[in-house]
Amino acid sequence: MTGVFDHPWLSGLFADDEIAALWSAEAQLSSMLAFEAAWSRHGHLAGLWSEAEGAAAASAIRDLTLKPDALREGTAQDGVCVPALVRLLKQSTGLNAIHKGATSQDVIDTATVVSLVQSLDVLGQRVHVLETGLSDLKSRFGGATMMGRTRMQAAMPIAAADRIETWRLPLLAHHDRLSQVQPRVALVQIGGAAGDRAALGEGADALCAAVADDLGLEPTPRSWHAMRDGMAEAASVLSLITGTLGKMGQDICLMAQQGIDEIALAGGGGSSAMPHKQNPVLAELLVTLARFNAMQVSGMHHAMVHEQERSGAAWTLEWMLLPQMAQATGRALNVATLLVAQIERMGAADRLS
Amino acid sequence: MTGVFDHPWLSGLFADDEIAALWSAEAQLSSMLAFEAAWSRHGHLAGLWSEAEGAAAASAIRDLTLKPDALREGTAQDGVCVPALVRLLKQSTGLNAIHKGATSQDVIDTATVVSLVQSLDVLGQRVHVLETGLSDLKSRFGGATMMGRTRMQAAMPIAAADRIETWRLPLLAHHDRLSQVQPRVALVQIGGAAGDRAALGEGADALCAAVADDLGLEPTPRSWHAMRDGMAEAASVLSLITGTLGKMGQDICLMAQQGIDEIALAGGGGSSAMPHKQNPVLAELLVTLARFNAMQVSGMHHAMVHEQERSGAAWTLEWMLLPQMAQATGRALNVATLLVAQIERMGAADRLS
Amino acid sequence: MTGVFDHPWLSGLFADDEIAALWSAEAQLSSMLAFEAAWSRHGHLAGLWSEAEGAAAASAIRDLTLKPDALREGTAQDGVCVPALVRLLKQSTGLNAIHKGATSQDVIDTATVVSLVQSLDVLGQRVHVLETGLSDLKSRFGGATMMGRTRMQAAMPIAAADRIETWRLPLLAHHDRLSQVQPRVALVQIGGAAGDRAALGEGADALCAAVADDLGLEPTPRSWHAMRDGMAEAASVLSLITGTLGKMGQDICLMAQQGIDEIALAGGGGSSAMPHKQNPVLAELLVTLARFNAMQVSGMHHAMVHEQERSGAAWTLEWMLLPQMAQATGRALNVATLLVAQIERMGAADRLS
Amino acid sequence: MTGVFDHPWLSGLFADDEIAALWSAEAQLSSMLAFEAAWSRHGHLAGLWSEAEGAAAASAIRDLTLKPDALREGTAQDGVCVPALVRLLKQSTGLNAIHKGATSQDVIDTATVVSLVQSLDVLGQRVHVLETGLSDLKSRFGGATMMGRTRMQAAMPIAAADRIETWRLPLLAHHDRLSQVQPRVALVQIGGAAGDRAALGEGADALCAAVADDLGLEPTPRSWHAMRDGMAEAASVLSLITGTLGKMGQDICLMAQQGIDEIALAGGGGSSAMPHKQNPVLAELLVTLARFNAMQVSGMHHAMVHEQERSGAAWTLEWMLLPQMAQATGRALNVATLLVAQIERMGAADRLS
Repeated sequence: MTGVFDHPWLSGLFADDEIAALWSAEAQLSSMLAFEAAWSRHGHLAGLWSEAEGAAAASAIRDLTLKPDALREGTAQDGVCVPALVRLLKQSTGLNAIHKGATSQDVIDTATVVSLVQSLDVLGQRVHVLETGLSDLKSRFGGATMMGRTRMQAAMPIAAADRIETWRLPLLAHHDRLSQVQPRVALVQIGGAAGDRAALGEGADALCAAVADDLGLEPTPRSWHAMRDGMAEAASVLSLITGTLGKMGQDICLMAQQGIDEIALAGGGGSSAMPHKQNPVLAELLVTLARFNAMQVSGMHHAMVHEQERSGAAWTLEWMLLPQMAQATGRALNVATLLVAQIERMGAADRLS
Repeated sequence: MTGVFDHPWLSGLFADDEIAALWSAEAQLSSMLAFEAAWSRHGHLAGLWSEAEGAAAASAIRDLTLKPDALREGTAQDGVCVPALVRLLKQSTGLNAIHKGATSQDVIDTATVVSLVQSLDVLGQRVHVLETGLSDLKSRFGGATMMGRTRMQAAMPIAAADRIETWRLPLLAHHDRLSQVQPRVALVQIGGAAGDRAALGEGADALCAAVADDLGLEPTPRSWHAMRDGMAEAASVLSLITGTLGKMGQDICLMAQQGIDEIALAGGGGSSAMPHKQNPVLAELLVTLARFNAMQVSGMHHAMVHEQERSGAAWTLEWMLLPQMAQATGRALNVATLLVAQIERMGAADRLS
Repeated sequence: MTGVFDHPWLSGLFADDEIAALWSAEAQLSSMLAFEAAWSRHGHLAGLWSEAEGAAAASAIRDLTLKPDALREGTAQDGVCVPALVRLLKQSTGLNAIHKGATSQDVIDTATVVSLVQSLDVLGQRVHVLETGLSDLKSRFGGATMMGRTRMQAAMPIAAADRIETWRLPLLAHHDRLSQVQPRVALVQIGGAAGDRAALGEGADALCAAVADDLGLEPTPRSWHAMRDGMAEAASVLSLITGTLGKMGQDICLMAQQGIDEIALAGGGGSSAMPHKQNPVLAELLVTLARFNAMQVSGMHHAMVHEQERSGAAWTLEWMLLPQMAQATGRALNVATLLVAQIERMGAADRLS
Repeated sequence: MTGVFDHPWLSGLFADDEIAALWSAEAQLSSMLAFEAAWSRHGHLAGLWSEAEGAAAASAIRDLTLKPDALREGTAQDGVCVPALVRLLKQSTGLNAIHKGATSQDVIDTATVVSLVQSLDVLGQRVHVLETGLSDLKSRFGGATMMGRTRMQAAMPIAAADRIETWRLPLLAHHDRLSQVQPRVALVQIGGAAGDRAALGEGADALCAAVADDLGLEPTPRSWHAMRDGMAEAASVLSLITGTLGKMGQDICLMAQQGIDEIALAGGGGSSAMPHKQNPVLAELLVTLARFNAMQVSGMHHAMVHEQERSGAAWTLEWMLLPQMAQATGRALNVATLLVAQIERMGAADRLS
């Protein structure tokens, strides 16, 4: 219970149920089973088994209900959950047209990509929602005058719209980034034991295309087992998004200071010692999440130094980082939208009287 | 379910039940209640209430059973769980000699320190166990000859003991580091609303000493709300430990390569595609955990830039990082000890025949 | 003399003269003067002065020769070099149609962007050269058989081409990334004192377009003073490139091990103690540079938390990081190309006999 | 010219001449020559040559004047400067009682340690000077009342002394940390080709003690080639120091805001656009340097994953990071002392009238 996203009370601050669901063990298991079912169904394209055998196995896999913790012991032993999963599938179904020609990394990476691509979609929608919220905020308060501040010193008066635009405009660029990274990560992973699809012969491309299609992903001419640039790029985009939101959060914290008083927020957190205080909790949280991602992104870049055909060490590091980055980004977007909706005034208080 | 430490199956690889228990929500809640009980009991020393009132409240707090998720909504609202906790305590007990003069940060930081100090103790014991395991390994295999390798090239033959010592000797230094950081973090947090103990008057020191004593911590002449060097230093020591273990893990991965064959390991992970393989899963995991902590430590140093009397943003960042670092360190020490016990040979295979 | 890129002897390992020249103080000064000359020349479009006054000032600025260290004292005083530069320009030329309506950040960010865009161009060319080198390598040795290795264990034999492709294919993606980030950073910076172009009136757009055109950049509808997503994204792309090269370097180090012997390299570094050794210095350097950038990129993401209209702290942090990242990336690409050219054999040595 | 510490004008902001001198190429070369001279002089203790031969070589080495860039080509070739240095020494002196039994890492690590230990001494003195400055500041302004601020919101009035103490007290802890890390890093490096002192026989300890003594360092029972915990710990202490100073800088930036006005500073930076502004440049710089070190420390922890008897990749990474961290720390301490001396008022402005 050491993670803030799943914590009984800290989840109140950090959890993003929608993104969490996309990365849940249940969702991961479901995607892994979807991969295995697609593999069974289409394996005949690569001569792995007959079409009928594959169809039977695919159907049996789809009818299975597995409990995620059934994979725990196997993961402890093997470092990955797939050998245990495959044993379970074969035992439960009594069938053999399963997994042959694939490998652990095919299953896990593909399942990760499904979660990632679905997350990018959700995040893209939220970027749009936030952008709309900020456009609306600009309509409401953009004309107010406030002090422009450079190097934390009063510079010259600006319109509130000027500051709002520094929060809003990067969202348009993030939208483009999300679109551009999508085709570089929405790729099925199929490589087999050593990543070269050796077991698949001339049917490799057909099998890859069919499996990709079943999973809503794109096929690739070869596996990307050891090419992690897409993953690191996606993580970078996540952190770019939270960076923009962190800037907005920092600004709002500064605007809400007594003596500055450039913003009025509905809500705000209470203090156990000072009932009069209204802490800008959501604004602070945006800063926290930005700095969190700004660190984790470093690890995703380190994980690109991926030895040979598969690095256990670097790959495992991604598992520690990417799901939390996705949830931090999702939470930050929700928090930002909520925070914008709480803004009841921008510009100097006395100018409104 | 996005954290590897609590994941249904990845926990098989990452979980450290003992350290996890020290940082569990239940343990944190228990420490927070212990703080509040001690505060009630000794509050009369600062004239907050009568000794009898305080004793009654302390007793009532101790008899309470709270469910962690009762604090979720309040945390979402306030950014910290303590306002909700205090409301619950007052409602449940119907008493008022509670919390007055303290603040959220006192409660949470003190509870964090309890978990941290207990973790450092456990880690210190494990460092000793591992050191013993490596001493034993040296006794068993230290005399074997193997190739010394510099810059990943064969240099000159060395004794296996030479390499083992590069794994073992830093543990002695880590033992010293753990001892030296301990008095800089095993400190009760008492500051009150703005950190200056203003509400405690001349009884502040007596109250602080009594509360610290109840919790097994040391008192301090003033609060350390905004001085996070101890936390960042403790995190640094955690990462130094995993760094040493990561070096050992990397070495063992390299030694276990076919063609190098300088080590034989019992156990090892299986592959879903290649039943003949024995993957050095635990050794790889040490590298992963070292790199994980080497990143997170950066965040703990960033969190030292803590604004004014309390930074919501920087403080919250610590919550995201420190518990996971502790668990990663604990797990790495357990993994290293297990791995050392799996070593069945060091030195070149043909030298044994 | 604390930087490796400019160090009397370490520069032998780290320096990239071409990229260094793009970021040199001389180049930066030259770009700043180009900005100021363009500003003077076109300022009449915003009514800052008459066309003739502006033309005279622009001409005088272009005829000036300034020594970079003339700006040192002013930078120490002001935190930026531009106030000193403007004083110098006015004194040296005796003219006044200079800088009015612009601000330090306009000058420095625009000069930085010139260096960055030129760097991205050079890096793009080098990515192409390296890709060609790897294609050629594949032609020469791709058919050789070598052991595929997963989790640092022998898996199944693969073709050398399979491993080469994990080095080559990400370069194609990097090419796309460089193209996509380019229009998001090749932007003139024009905002004036508080970033809102308040001093420029209705001529702001015309002035911005004219200055951008002079400098080979694109105009923007508003300044990006406080929107640093483009800078952080560019840094991410740099680190993605070095990540790919670090993977290649790590692989070659592993391939060059005695006992593995999957590669033969011409050249290689000597040892002061062991004349027989040939250290894979360039391959190791690729790992070093990848890890260097994987850290620095974290700082560029942190720098997105940029307060209000200009953050002195976050902006200054970019100055510490981005030029070194560019040089590290440039050096890594040159090193990789050199290293590929040194490959004299891939695949197991005995298979060639 | 890509490093801020040596830049013609940015050095005005970043340079620390005293620390820079300790890490200069000249100083490094001088320390390397001191190592080689000590090695020659005492090598007879390990039977490497006769006492007379060694004395002659030591004397000749001391009389040499080498130009740092003479090592550039060799470094490019070998990845380290020592093979070229040794060739130069032998050629220049015509003697042979040189370097035998030592290795590159012995020379470079020992020279690095000399710079590091001297830096830690200087930093310790500066920590003391700053602590004195803050004590004096407390005497002058500690009694002033100002608003305590938590979560960036006004909480309760505090004494200025309360905030000053959050800047000052960690310096006392840093003093202890510097004392505690010192014996873990002030260690001569002597290991020879593979780190096991194999070439030194029974005289190894005597030679090690004598060389250490010449250089003002302590001997060790074995080399620490592959045990980098001391280096990473020293880097951590550097970053802990800048973290404390970054907190002080951030506070001062916040205090200096118009509308807050809790501090008055003499000096401050000018603006090219707004002559009325006084930017808190030094305070911002403290934040920048804290974040810089908070990132670099991550790399020093990563560099602990040091393969086998010597990792070219990880060792080279230290060269990129540690000298800049030392200079950043030194500069931050100087800046902090200067900044404290510029404080002309603390507490609310209107309370002084």
